[in-house]
Amino acid sequence: MAMGARLCCSSILFVLVVLLLAATTMARGGVTSSFWRKSEATEDMPMDADVFAVPPGPNAPQQVHMTFGDKDGTAMTVSWVTMEEAGNSTVMYGRATDKLDMAADGNHTRYKYHNYTSGFIHHCTLTNLERGVKYYYAMGFGRTVRTFWFTAPPKPGPDVPFRLGLIGDLGQTAYSNSTLTHYEATGGDAVLFMGDLSYADKHPLHDNNRWDTWGRFSERSVAYQPWLWVTGNHEIDYAPELGETMPFKPFTHRYPTPHLASGSSEPYWYSVRLASAHIIVLSSYSAFTKYTPQYKWLEAELKRVNRTETPWLILASHSPWYNSNNFHYMEGEPMRVQFEQLAVDARVDLVFSGHVHAYERSFRVSNVKYNITDGRCTPVRDRRAPVYITIGDGGNIEGLANEMTQPQPAYSAFREASFGHAVLDIKNRTHAYYTWYRNDDGAKVAADTMWFTNRYHMPNHDDSATKQ
Amino acid sequence: MAMGARLCCSSILFVLVVLLLAATTMARGGVTSSFWRKSEATEDMPMDADVFAVPPGPNAPQQVHMTFGDKDGTAMTVSWVTMEEAGNSTVMYGRATDKLDMAADGNHTRYKYHNYTSGFIHHCTLTNLERGVKYYYAMGFGRTVRTFWFTAPPKPGPDVPFRLGLIGDLGQTAYSNSTLTHYEATGGDAVLFMGDLSYADKHPLHDNNRWDTWGRFSERSVAYQPWLWVTGNHEIDYAPELGETMPFKPFTHRYPTPHLASGSSEPYWYSVRLASAHIIVLSSYSAFTKYTPQYKWLEAELKRVNRTETPWLILASHSPWYNSNNFHYMEGEPMRVQFEQLAVDARVDLVFSGHVHAYERSFRVSNVKYNITDGRCTPVRDRRAPVYITIGDGGNIEGLANEMTQPQPAYSAFREASFGHAVLDIKNRTHAYYTWYRNDDGAKVAADTMWFTNRYHMPNHDDSATKQ
Repeated sequence: MAMGARLCCSSILFVLVVLLLAATTMARGGVTSSFWRKSEATEDMPMDADVFAVPPGPNAPQQVHMTFGDKDGTAMTVSWVTMEEAGNSTVMYGRATDKLDMAADGNHTRYKYHNYTSGFIHHCTLTNLERGVKYYYAMGFGRTVRTFWFTAPPKPGPDVPFRLGLIGDLGQTAYSNSTLTHYEATGGDAVLFMGDLSYADKHPLHDNNRWDTWGRFSERSVAYQPWLWVTGNHEIDYAPELGETMPFKPFTHRYPTPHLASGSSEPYWYSVRLASAHIIVLSSYSAFTKYTPQYKWLEAELKRVNRTETPWLILASHSPWYNSNNFHYMEGEPMRVQFEQLAVDARVDLVFSGHVHAYERSFRVSNVKYNITDGRCTPVRDRRAPVYITIGDGGNIEGLANEMTQPQPAYSAFREASFGHAVLDIKNRTHAYYTWYRNDDGAKVAADTMWFTNRYHMPNHDDSATKQ
Repeated sequence: MAMGARLCCSSILFVLVVLLLAATTMARGGVTSSFWRKSEATEDMPMDADVFAVPPGPNAPQQVHMTFGDKDGTAMTVSWVTMEEAGNSTVMYGRATDKLDMAADGNHTRYKYHNYTSGFIHHCTLTNLERGVKYYYAMGFGRTVRTFWFTAPPKPGPDVPFRLGLIGDLGQTAYSNSTLTHYEATGGDAVLFMGDLSYADKHPLHDNNRWDTWGRFSERSVAYQPWLWVTGNHEIDYAPELGETMPFKPFTHRYPTPHLASGSSEPYWYSVRLASAHIIVLSSYSAFTKYTPQYKWLEAELKRVNRTETPWLILASHSPWYNSNNFHYMEGEPMRVQFEQLAVDARVDLVFSGHVHAYERSFRVSNVKYNITDGRCTPVRDRRAPVYITIGDGGNIEGLANEMTQPQPAYSAFREASFGHAVLDIKNRTHAYYTWYRNDDGAKVAADTMWFTNRYHMPNHDDSATKQ
């Protein structure tokens, strides 16, 4: 009996241990969402859709958008297009609609792309903005004046809260419209846009009128808060068959970035400091190997990051370094191979990407041991490493990427083939609450949430679904 | 006794098998040369060295060099510099020095680099060359005329023999001079130069006078046969601290490439067809990920290769994809990760690189199985794969790279830290005899030789030290 009891106890213990191990494994393993978005054609909204309406009035400014005009947000660059004539490139701004007492003079440019000639594209940088102040601004003087507003970003500091919208691969379909509407409801302070804006290149001859429609469509958000642009493959517009071989030609004419302010020599990689975050934008489609301008810039930029002032270190690139979707699988490998060690050494908190038209969040993993001969090429959990988030799910003409690799690899924490957007709600130097919202057609549904802990201030803490 | 005899026989057999296996392993393993070049300072030759002498005569053309002017070698682009005034950009050419009965008009350019202003850099393309004919050419009309000669390349064809010189990272030290002298003695028909020409960027303010001295130094070969240029990191000349942020500025002004003839949109990647070889030049320091111009060009170019006409398919990039020297170890990984599968699928015969200041030849290996989760990241012997040759050992100001990784990895067939150059002596569609010559100071010593068999016509044959 004694022997039997001991055996029985042992068996129970054994079963308990097995159950515990199984539970632990399950808790640590990744989740592939059971939500299955029905696959539908995703066509661009027709050219005459309301969201593309040309604003009324002769030579009315259209496609108004804004982005950082310097590194810290005391300047904003406002851009717009006039179609009939150049008009003037001046912006008046001030603290009330009837007190636009400051003036900024800009300039305009045009470009040709195959058989398309752009309107007059104006760029004007508003400087000396006071932190956190709401400004009204207007342009179109001499003909049709239009007025907008924005709030200047707060002064960077370690505990300054803010809400960063995260959108990628938006396009101009009905889903794009839904995503943008949902983001407006979410109410972020700025957007980090992960590249692939208009998908004009999916139309015959890269129809650049689709750049114009996208500019009018997105104005309702990007005229009122800065969007930070990452360059995607659909911005390359390289088409030797059309005689167009200058990469990024439409994009660079239309969407300036504050690259000079951060010492970058090209618009495609740069950084800003926003509240408690240092955000570094990288270019998947520019040179990035050692000795190249982008590499040298990033290496120097990472040394300039001051985690005491801006504890949150965020990278963005169009092509994800970790992705378990069959679409674009391993396309980000060259950049991962080049930059991952730098990112781990710098204790980057989060790396956001687009490109894959689905959603995925990784665990904190690294894959930096490989030395060609040692066989150590498997991603491993690593608290020093970033979380990788792929959010190329704005909802564009190419449709969903709904073929996942099977089984779900160990680096993947959560994945779902749906459209949507996310917001990173940084609370203070240690905690940020993150939510990914699925576009369940009409509804906006929080489908992935996480408390991220800061890698500088809480390097030994794990992220969690609940606040630690 | 019978049992004892059997045991004895078994033992002998066992020992024999072990010895045989050991011998096979040794035969298959790589060799690190026992030759140990003494390490010395490698300084650039003084500015007033004879090899840098300015040719006599007012406004005399200097730094004369030539490269392919089209894809197939029926045109040659001749470049030179005049220092005092622009003069004219015309080249007269013909079949005898007293019968220069053809004229080609070129143009000239200048550039500034920080505090340096270049001379007048002339480029002129000689067209309608007859295959295999020796031409004389002259320039400098109106002031000092200088005359040179070259032999137009043969018409591409499957069994057309030729000798391709292979030089990299040449610089302008006494060793550089020795390498060039040795190459002249070897007597190739053209040079595939693996990048890093002058190392001007190693001098204060990237002293561009060192581009001029290099042009005068190398004239004795490159004015008489085409050199095909790969772009190296020392051509980038990116120096924001000097206000110089346009990559490759001195190089592109001085050294044209026939990129337009092969449908490339940038001078840094292109192809030519030379005798029985199709040579593809890639740029380690330009964008090359999927969707970029270089990627799209290479993908299309590989489809244009006709192995029936040009059975030898050769790639060149500055940074090696396989390298077992500690210097620059794994720097070529991003491009390997991006392009290796394409190279294996295309059955590329040979990939030449520079960058590492030593010599190395690989076995035919590939490392293309890795899928992130499968752990298959070790290079394996693969008859479909190229041989990788690193020949960045021209002898430049940075000195030798004489720290090898230990033990020698299985992909490395032969390696030695010496200066030198090589020649690929293509005999016909199936065989090419390759020799690497060590610069044993004054002497030229054949230190690595190999018969390469063509991957298109003899895909199942191994390369060998003796002809098969």
